[in-house]
Amino acid sequence: MALATTPEPPYYAVIFTSLRNVQPDDGYEATADRMVELAREQPGFLGVDSARAGVGITVCYWTDEASIAAWKANAEHALAQQRGQKEWYARYSLRVARVERAYAVDTGNG
Amino acid sequence: MALATTPEPPYYAVIFTSLRNVQPDDGYEATADRMVELAREQPGFLGVDSARAGVGITVCYWTDEASIAAWKANAEHALAQQRGQKEWYARYSLRVARVERAYAVDTGNG
Repeated sequence: MALATTPEPPYYAVIFTSLRNVQPDDGYEATADRMVELAREQPGFLGVDSARAGVGITVCYWTDEASIAAWKANAEHALAQQRGQKEWYARYSLRVARVERAYAVDTGNG
Repeated sequence: MALATTPEPPYYAVIFTSLRNVQPDDGYEATADRMVELAREQPGFLGVDSARAGVGITVCYWTDEASIAAWKANAEHALAQQRGQKEWYARYSLRVARVERAYAVDTGNG
């Protein structure tokens, strides 16, 4: 368990929030894991944070908009996006944002 | 359970990611709930999405940087931030990002 570590801004964050349409054995988890694995291999990928507790939130960090566009168009990812819309999600939102400032703190606790 | 709905960009997203330092009866949940309630009352607040599954991710949406600065300086929030650093978190990151484009999809599923 770790938080994404990213370089100094500016860079980009893609904020994907979703509500699941859960069906038995719908293959969602395996594909979600595969997409994170695949994203990590893409040019411009910086990191990812993801959590689901009812609402699912995945924030993926990228060097620039061109990297985001290339990842969106990746063939295997495009298939997963289609299944997401048709099967896995009841609702989702995607926001592309330019990170302007950031800091990280190790508190010394835990 | 609902996703935050936000107006057309541009607006701002504050992406707060954290790893908890969990202690018995540490008061975290009550304060976290209170901070969401209090944030909703602030000028410039647009919405919030939050999930924790190991990693905690809270994305809060604001109209502008001035609203974010005012919320950071809110007295009750400042006390909660201090307790967060001293007690509740092992590590956290905060990123301020300008949302440039966004869309939401109701899939018709679920």
